[in-house]
Amino acid sequence: MDKNNIRPRVPGGFRDLLPEEFAKRQWILDKAEQVYKSFGFQQLETSCVEYFETLAGSDETSKQIYRIFNQQPDFSGESMALRFDLTVSLARILAEYRSKINLPFKRYQIGYVWRGERQQKGRYKQFLQFDADIIGASGPSADAEIVIIIDRVMKALGLKDYTIRINNRKILNGFIQSLGLTGEDVNAFLRILDKLDKIEWEGVAEKLRAPRSANDENEKAGLGLDENKVELVKAALIDNEINGQMFSKILKNYKFDSSSIEQGENEIYRLLELAKTAGVCEFNLKFDTSLARGLDYYSGPVFETILNDLPDIGSVMSGGRYDNLMERFGKESYPATGISLGVDRLAAALEEMGLMELASNPVEVLFAPMDNEAENTCFKLAGELRDNGVTCEVFLGDNQKLKKQLNYADRRGIAQCVIIGSEEILSGTAQIKNLKTGEQRGCPILKIVETIIE
Amino acid sequence: MDKNNIRPRVPGGFRDLLPEEFAKRQWILDKAEQVYKSFGFQQLETSCVEYFETLAGSDETSKQIYRIFNQQPDFSGESMALRFDLTVSLARILAEYRSKINLPFKRYQIGYVWRGERQQKGRYKQFLQFDADIIGASGPSADAEIVIIIDRVMKALGLKDYTIRINNRKILNGFIQSLGLTGEDVNAFLRILDKLDKIEWEGVAEKLRAPRSANDENEKAGLGLDENKVELVKAALIDNEINGQMFSKILKNYKFDSSSIEQGENEIYRLLELAKTAGVCEFNLKFDTSLARGLDYYSGPVFETILNDLPDIGSVMSGGRYDNLMERFGKESYPATGISLGVDRLAAALEEMGLMELASNPVEVLFAPMDNEAENTCFKLAGELRDNGVTCEVFLGDNQKLKKQLNYADRRGIAQCVIIGSEEILSGTAQIKNLKTGEQRGCPILKIVETIIE
Repeated sequence: MDKNNIRPRVPGGFRDLLPEEFAKRQWILDKAEQVYKSFGFQQLETSCVEYFETLAGSDETSKQIYRIFNQQPDFSGESMALRFDLTVSLARILAEYRSKINLPFKRYQIGYVWRGERQQKGRYKQFLQFDADIIGASGPSADAEIVIIIDRVMKALGLKDYTIRINNRKILNGFIQSLGLTGEDVNAFLRILDKLDKIEWEGVAEKLRAPRSANDENEKAGLGLDENKVELVKAALIDNEINGQMFSKILKNYKFDSSSIEQGENEIYRLLELAKTAGVCEFNLKFDTSLARGLDYYSGPVFETILNDLPDIGSVMSGGRYDNLMERFGKESYPATGISLGVDRLAAALEEMGLMELASNPVEVLFAPMDNEAENTCFKLAGELRDNGVTCEVFLGDNQKLKKQLNYADRRGIAQCVIIGSEEILSGTAQIKNLKTGEQRGCPILKIVETIIE
Repeated sequence: MDKNNIRPRVPGGFRDLLPEEFAKRQWILDKAEQVYKSFGFQQLETSCVEYFETLAGSDETSKQIYRIFNQQPDFSGESMALRFDLTVSLARILAEYRSKINLPFKRYQIGYVWRGERQQKGRYKQFLQFDADIIGASGPSADAEIVIIIDRVMKALGLKDYTIRINNRKILNGFIQSLGLTGEDVNAFLRILDKLDKIEWEGVAEKLRAPRSANDENEKAGLGLDENKVELVKAALIDNEINGQMFSKILKNYKFDSSSIEQGENEIYRLLELAKTAGVCEFNLKFDTSLARGLDYYSGPVFETILNDLPDIGSVMSGGRYDNLMERFGKESYPATGISLGVDRLAAALEEMGLMELASNPVEVLFAPMDNEAENTCFKLAGELRDNGVTCEVFLGDNQKLKKQLNYADRRGIAQCVIIGSEEILSGTAQIKNLKTGEQRGCPILKIVETIIE
């Protein structure tokens, strides 16, 4: 095992979390978990490794899937591969263990996923996903619960000024169909609209107007909408401030009549009513008909969460209803709605806003023994403190010089040092040093535990 | 994404944890983590993916390493691979981020590792490791801290009748050398001794006596010890009940004189002294000179933990000092000592002993609304209960029939149901049903929250 010539490094696109970073991320996960648990969500864990055929989707996706092998690479569907997201595994679990799962199934999962994307700054090939979903409930009460959960997670993290944007694909789909668009054009429209935050209305309008292309791969191709329709999109989706039944009314002016739009609107009003009843402040909710969320599979309400002080980082909790996704494996289909927590985005935002508590397992006391006999006393006192719930350390390093020990405490951010040497054992009085103020005082060894607990 | 013909299944050797199983495992992890944290241990997380050359060790090990690829398989040292254990990654972290890490570094890590072993019952190709180690402290106080931690983890899990077996490689190595064995024979002796629990003394003696073989691969080959030496092994390691300085005394009768043995013994006595001072009961400690722990790399104290009611499951927390392992990557070397928690073994043992608390996120109340108006009231009350720390659910399923809702509560193990329909809204009185006793009583809706909190 001669590794002398091997450079210690992690492969590009992968990363380690040293304890301080880890503790920050864990703090966020813990806060969110507490909220999920208080709603009766249960944690699920699926294998990181799946059959390739279970994971394989579009060509684009399949190229990014990592296969694994130990002796011979295998390119068949039965080759083993690392999961790409947590949703496919959830679908597999529902099909494989159906009899063991009670519906509605409210589960969350925290786990790494792997994607062999081209390397980009800030993009990792291994990243943590944190999904919460409700399977087997089709009504707006389940979507409302998701919105209430978003609100509680934000509050638990100390955030106040956020906007939960809500729309319904049924509204958008009804509207898009009324424009005369069908099939793949519906998704193309949604993808264009999804760019609103980045390219603003002018950019969106340009793409809607741009001529169609015979070549599907042409990224500059548009939908070839005429100017009237582009104006209608602006009036209905962009200028429209939703209020009461305004949206369907506006559309009625244009002689639109879509039951899909009305149904979608009613679902959102019911959702908003339940959310407000459960204590979500109106100020944090925005029914926004321009919200698209790019992904094809959404079928009902969609959500995203914007931090109003940092809108540029994008949505920190996003999701929606996807009633048709859970029919993989050709068995039963399940209505489903859910949310993903953007852990890295939230960590960056909380850091920038100074809201990230330094939860790095704070050690309250370092015992600094000067010799072996003092070490005995320190081990005894440390045990008693831990029995009383105080996190503490006895210095274990090889160099027992006081300066070394105080240095260690300082670098570890430990504020209090209890110093015990032969003199202190003899006199029965230890020294307690406050490393922040530099103040030092004597304290009878017999009273150390109660003094520190106070 | 037509998966209609794909059978939903996890690859052989991999597994999922449904919520109930997951919660049990998590309960164990949480208990152990709390102990580690109270000693100031910090959690580290390393990438699951490493360069193959970082991981590669002996041929035997390398064959089990899973390489990963998305486009083309790569057989070079720079190919990416899934980590095999957490120790190699720890060594890499120390070399790569040395300036950011304070020594002594007390870290724990909980993470999956992957090994392409031949499939066996109860053996998985992906399994969780839970390691805690102290890096940069060479004295017995660090080893004592490990023993104290084992003791506290056992107690935190509700275990009482366990034995922490302790030995020191310095004692064994000194003894083995005194038998005239050197080099690879030392490890061969340790591997034979490590089988003591399985093949008992007679089996060990046979292997010690068996003639050597020219072929290193011959598993039946022995060490060719003469009968006197085999008897000495029995007297010194097996029959010997360590008490005071007995071990070195026994050996002196045989005209052994090894400073390594004496040093090893002194370290163990110091370790035991500190452990007892910190409150570990003598009853739970056993200095056992026959304890080998098979792995080559141990260099000082070694530990294992036996549940006296279930000795057959083997050690549930094991480890030792490995001062020479952290010199990979040709940089500084660090003294190190640590422990692994056998999560699956502990889960099986606690289950068998009835000590596993059903920590599956217990939901205390299910609100059962009979219609939309009642649903509003239920969402409001559930929010208030959660504000008071009560875990509760509003039934979200599509079928609001009372029987369905009570069934759901029953299957989820929820003991209390609050039933609200139009009648209850009108009268201002909800029904609280205890699903264990069947008892049902009215309660004013305005008093539901305080009644349940009581």
